[in-house]
Amino acid sequence: MIQQFLPALEAEIKEQKLGESPQELYEPIRYLMQLGGKRIRPVLCLLSYSLFKGDWEKVVPTALSIEIFHNFTLMHDDIMDKAPLRRGKQTVHEKWNDNIAILSGDVMLVNAYQYLNNCQHLSLAEYQHLLLRFNRTAAEVCEGQQMDMNFESRSAVTVGEYIEMIRLKTSVLIGLSMEMGGILAGVDASKAKTLYEIGERIGLGFQLKDDLLDVYGDPEKFGKQVGGDILANKKTYLLIRALESAQGEALASLHAWLAAANPNPAEKVRAITQLYTDLGIRAETEAKINQYFDLAFEAIDQLNLQSEQKEVLGKFLSGLVDREV
Amino acid sequence: MIQQFLPALEAEIKEQKLGESPQELYEPIRYLMQLGGKRIRPVLCLLSYSLFKGDWEKVVPTALSIEIFHNFTLMHDDIMDKAPLRRGKQTVHEKWNDNIAILSGDVMLVNAYQYLNNCQHLSLAEYQHLLLRFNRTAAEVCEGQQMDMNFESRSAVTVGEYIEMIRLKTSVLIGLSMEMGGILAGVDASKAKTLYEIGERIGLGFQLKDDLLDVYGDPEKFGKQVGGDILANKKTYLLIRALESAQGEALASLHAWLAAANPNPAEKVRAITQLYTDLGIRAETEAKINQYFDLAFEAIDQLNLQSEQKEVLGKFLSGLVDREV
Repeated sequence: MIQQFLPALEAEIKEQKLGESPQELYEPIRYLMQLGGKRIRPVLCLLSYSLFKGDWEKVVPTALSIEIFHNFTLMHDDIMDKAPLRRGKQTVHEKWNDNIAILSGDVMLVNAYQYLNNCQHLSLAEYQHLLLRFNRTAAEVCEGQQMDMNFESRSAVTVGEYIEMIRLKTSVLIGLSMEMGGILAGVDASKAKTLYEIGERIGLGFQLKDDLLDVYGDPEKFGKQVGGDILANKKTYLLIRALESAQGEALASLHAWLAAANPNPAEKVRAITQLYTDLGIRAETEAKINQYFDLAFEAIDQLNLQSEQKEVLGKFLSGLVDREV
Repeated sequence: MIQQFLPALEAEIKEQKLGESPQELYEPIRYLMQLGGKRIRPVLCLLSYSLFKGDWEKVVPTALSIEIFHNFTLMHDDIMDKAPLRRGKQTVHEKWNDNIAILSGDVMLVNAYQYLNNCQHLSLAEYQHLLLRFNRTAAEVCEGQQMDMNFESRSAVTVGEYIEMIRLKTSVLIGLSMEMGGILAGVDASKAKTLYEIGERIGLGFQLKDDLLDVYGDPEKFGKQVGGDILANKKTYLLIRALESAQGEALASLHAWLAAANPNPAEKVRAITQLYTDLGIRAETEAKINQYFDLAFEAIDQLNLQSEQKEVLGKFLSGLVDREV
């Protein structure tokens, strides 16, 4: 069944209902939506729904709203971050221009709400609750992006602030994906909350794994340049923890590399990676990731699933956890 | 009663429920919402509701969603148009920066949906219909803005294209404001459509009057520079019609002024204004405006209102029509 989710979502994306004119407004949406990706969020929504109900096909359009929303945030974030590439292709603001990326993104957010507007089987109160959760989460994702931008111009960021930023920017939407599956299936508030927490924790582990793979990933599998975060002096979990825990010579060396005007890229990546390893940051980050994943798996028990459903969920989440790309 | 709408809306705006942190995200929303304005859209929504039901207070938050949406479009349009001022004050992207204006605007659109999410007295089907209409209109407003931007780089724009652009950019939202009042009051589909049409026509007349006042407004009352559109070579209804109807010397003179590299501003405004008048464009535009307003007033009869309600609506719309600022 779970193998059918992705094809069903891709078929829905191919038929995505959008306006037609002016084409500058709608072409970028089709372009970005069809760049691919793993569609983790709507797949999680469908998976979560199917833990409780069999007729998952009918909530495919509603699940897609999360993927549209996610891609809207990518379109606008890429403008703000001046990112040239997304999934190896030109970003929308690069291929068209900033104004088109702003306005197409706006229409995309509206389109996400229209896809959400597809669940006729709920009561008004249930639907309004779903919208409330969607709206709150959407605002939180924006809060996370603003925090991320603020961090760039700040000298010091604590681990607590960093975790809160990635929770808002990434994890709450993964949490909502699972919660929405539950709400659509009519689960009670306590189960909905548990589903959210599973997604949120998986999301935190997932994002920290991103930070880790950017340093320690296998260059052949990783798909993008290993060490990109190091070269950009990006305040990742690893850098923040290294700055907190390094002392004496190690700290001086770290600061020197961060301040270096035109360092040799390969040398900088090698040196900081070595510092991370020596300071135990690699092991520490792996432990932190496992801690979040363990918390997610523990929460599964609270759902009182039948063993078959429990196995399906556990297997899918393990797949997310074990990824090396 | 109608005198109570604006204070009720302003009170709701003062208490507007937004997140708190990061403040860069929420301050610009409060700033823009509190720059003032006539709040025509939510007032029209409340007025429309009160034609059919007395308890208008309960739909104030829902009506406010349209004002929040409208201000969201202003925040993003001002980035795209590189506008320095809005209602005589710095625009958000000027006071903060482009990224903050993009992201604050995004949260504002989400906030509009949360205010819309306040009507507990509808059925699910009615609410989903309202959302469908809101979503379609929101997309149309973006379509209008994209058309407007496209027109800037085009040499020729027809009257038909121009009317369609202002219909999308301005009128459909005024139409929706009135329709939403009706939907919230539970009117049938035919009356809802009529309310929409009244608003749409008023909106068309309203926007053309904007074009007219920019040329022929009383400088003491108008509040902004008379002739601003002329100096910017803006393709307004007046310029498009002048280019269509001028011949010989008048056409040559018009083209010369449009192409002039560093014209004396006062002379250019005076010359083109004179050309408009000579070509009969002023009278023609006034006739076109009156035509839209007449169509709006004619449609009122289809609502079968009691004479008192009819008078209230007619009086309010006349106030919009007769404005000189």
